[in-house]
Amino acid sequence: MIVTPQTLLFDTPLTLQSGAVLPRYELVYETYGTLNAERSNAVLVCHALNASHHVAGRYADANGQPLPRSEGWWDNLIGPGKPIDTQRWFVIGINNLGSCFGSTGPTHVNPATGEAWGADFPVVTVEDWVHAQARLLDQLGISALAAVVGGSLGGMQTLSWTLQYPQRVRHAVVVASAPNLTAENIAFNEVARRAIVTDPDFHGGHYLRHGTLPRRGLRIARMIGHITYLSDDVMNEKFGRQLKPLNEAAQAGDLDEAVRLAYRYTTQDVEFQIESYLRHQGDKFSEYFDANTYLLITRALDYFDPARHHDGNLSAALAAARAQFLLVSFTTDWRFSPARSREVVKALLDNRRDVSYAEIDAPHGHDAFLLDDPRYHAAVRAYFERQVAQPLASGNRA
Amino acid sequence: MIVTPQTLLFDTPLTLQSGAVLPRYELVYETYGTLNAERSNAVLVCHALNASHHVAGRYADANGQPLPRSEGWWDNLIGPGKPIDTQRWFVIGINNLGSCFGSTGPTHVNPATGEAWGADFPVVTVEDWVHAQARLLDQLGISALAAVVGGSLGGMQTLSWTLQYPQRVRHAVVVASAPNLTAENIAFNEVARRAIVTDPDFHGGHYLRHGTLPRRGLRIARMIGHITYLSDDVMNEKFGRQLKPLNEAAQAGDLDEAVRLAYRYTTQDVEFQIESYLRHQGDKFSEYFDANTYLLITRALDYFDPARHHDGNLSAALAAARAQFLLVSFTTDWRFSPARSREVVKALLDNRRDVSYAEIDAPHGHDAFLLDDPRYHAAVRAYFERQVAQPLASGNRA
Repeated sequence: MIVTPQTLLFDTPLTLQSGAVLPRYELVYETYGTLNAERSNAVLVCHALNASHHVAGRYADANGQPLPRSEGWWDNLIGPGKPIDTQRWFVIGINNLGSCFGSTGPTHVNPATGEAWGADFPVVTVEDWVHAQARLLDQLGISALAAVVGGSLGGMQTLSWTLQYPQRVRHAVVVASAPNLTAENIAFNEVARRAIVTDPDFHGGHYLRHGTLPRRGLRIARMIGHITYLSDDVMNEKFGRQLKPLNEAAQAGDLDEAVRLAYRYTTQDVEFQIESYLRHQGDKFSEYFDANTYLLITRALDYFDPARHHDGNLSAALAAARAQFLLVSFTTDWRFSPARSREVVKALLDNRRDVSYAEIDAPHGHDAFLLDDPRYHAAVRAYFERQVAQPLASGNRA
Repeated sequence: MIVTPQTLLFDTPLTLQSGAVLPRYELVYETYGTLNAERSNAVLVCHALNASHHVAGRYADANGQPLPRSEGWWDNLIGPGKPIDTQRWFVIGINNLGSCFGSTGPTHVNPATGEAWGADFPVVTVEDWVHAQARLLDQLGISALAAVVGGSLGGMQTLSWTLQYPQRVRHAVVVASAPNLTAENIAFNEVARRAIVTDPDFHGGHYLRHGTLPRRGLRIARMIGHITYLSDDVMNEKFGRQLKPLNEAAQAGDLDEAVRLAYRYTTQDVEFQIESYLRHQGDKFSEYFDANTYLLITRALDYFDPARHHDGNLSAALAAARAQFLLVSFTTDWRFSPARSREVVKALLDNRRDVSYAEIDAPHGHDAFLLDDPRYHAAVRAYFERQVAQPLASGNRA
């Protein structure tokens, strides 16, 4: 499946939750499959922290051939014949405001100054993103969505869709998500932000003006993130206490050297495999991700809390939803644990909503939502075939 | 209980596990209680990352009055009438090599250069610390210990004592510890170290020569540490999703302002209480802790792995131990989980050692080992009264 991103320009100002106004902005999006004549088969996919509109398919090179390793981030779930089958559904991926992957964000030019927005880009919330996504769907002539789907922060947007636009969402698929962040989640975000903000190359968020990038801070932020996306078990299985120099020497057949290198007795060199892996992840990330975007997106995560205006009562907060729901969680996900998904399930049942819930016994931690665990994918496939594909009359309470 | 630290100078070189030799060094220590005539009531307490020889009691001001807030770090556990009763036991706290609290470490002068050791201070291991502690006990004329006690990294030293000097330890009390670090533990240490090492003020570990201190890195390291010392539950209970500016305005009785400040919509200001707490902890720590010491101690944690020379077989590794054991773990400790203590219990039982094990249902995470949970303290008290106080003949297999 060869895909091409598109861009829509919005000239009407967007008032954000903070009160700030974005005078004009662009949103980049991709679509897969074909919108039917009734415009009733649209499925919106919301992305998480380190992702974009490029949800599925591959990009083409100059000769129209698929570029290697250009698959979208949920390509194992979405495509022809896949659990979310693009032969049946018209799937839309939209890059969120504030991103560094195409839609208007801190690296773009602030029309008021003629310079990059940098730290002056206004804080955006989950609700703001959903609002902007709805405007884009208006432009595409899509008034109602067969389903909204998202994992992690994308799941928060999915939940928010059912509250902000209850009449426009028939089904909501919320994977590895939560009704808000715990104090521990906020704490991890805060440490990552402090690492970025206290990097001397950050320059108050205006590093582009200074011709620098706060790569040190981004590296640390990404390393922290990576630890929390994996489970302790899968880390032990993948890396354990393996010593990198020893492994390398052993692979080269030099066992004497391997033994000599068992421990290097240093504090700054890579000694354990897990260190090498984390440094590599941090280095890669710091080359392509924008620091101000990282700050904005983690803050949107911190803020999200639909129960806030209902004295913390999630059941009262979710009373506005009209969609049918599928929630999926993963047993070893300690960042968005099954208990958090169950809170949402309970609050929806309190409101007599139709809810399906799958708790998948997977070893991969939070990352599991991006992997192709067969039970997880079977649950999503079955939900789309049996529930989302049902005729509107029997499938929708709206 | 007023206490005074003492210092012992060692002029005999100490060969470290890495092969490096420390030509001469000082160890700072404190003692509480009185050594009996048989020299049989000595209890050694080993300290963890952010602690020292100052285990119990208080320091005196110029008038001999106790200084406020000068209590030792385990003062709730150790003292007259306390679970480890200094009316009966002669308790010894020793500051480890490489520390920044008095014993020879990276901030001390390297005799070879006349300058501070800095990053050139040799890497020390748990085994090196135990070796140095044993030398100090030699000087005090103590050939056998009634007990060695330690929590966390201190528990690793305790375990190591029973393997390096099996004939010198009658009882080992290992609290909230593990037979080695998991990959996840090493990963958190590595992120903390990268934050320090990539701080531009680190200067390859020779910041003292440059008149700087890598405070930014230390702050991040401490924030990461703090998250992992607490449980998710206790963080939620203490901080939840409370907004700091809102709380402050509400406390000042200004509810309109409180509502206005509900969210500030910033990425760098403190908005949530947990952020304020973490920043404060990081700031405090960066004022008194030495960065090279942080690197050395976390590396000692990473390295510790007595099963390493036994193909990962912990039972084989612990076969050398002759002591009786008490292990204590805390249900919400996700850094040194009960499962890790149970591994030690199982390995000791495989060797038919006498083992007591208490798994305390405490909400406080890893930090619980420093708090005065009554069930935990009762278990330690009972063990000392019933087991350690037993006559040597019935209590020791050595």
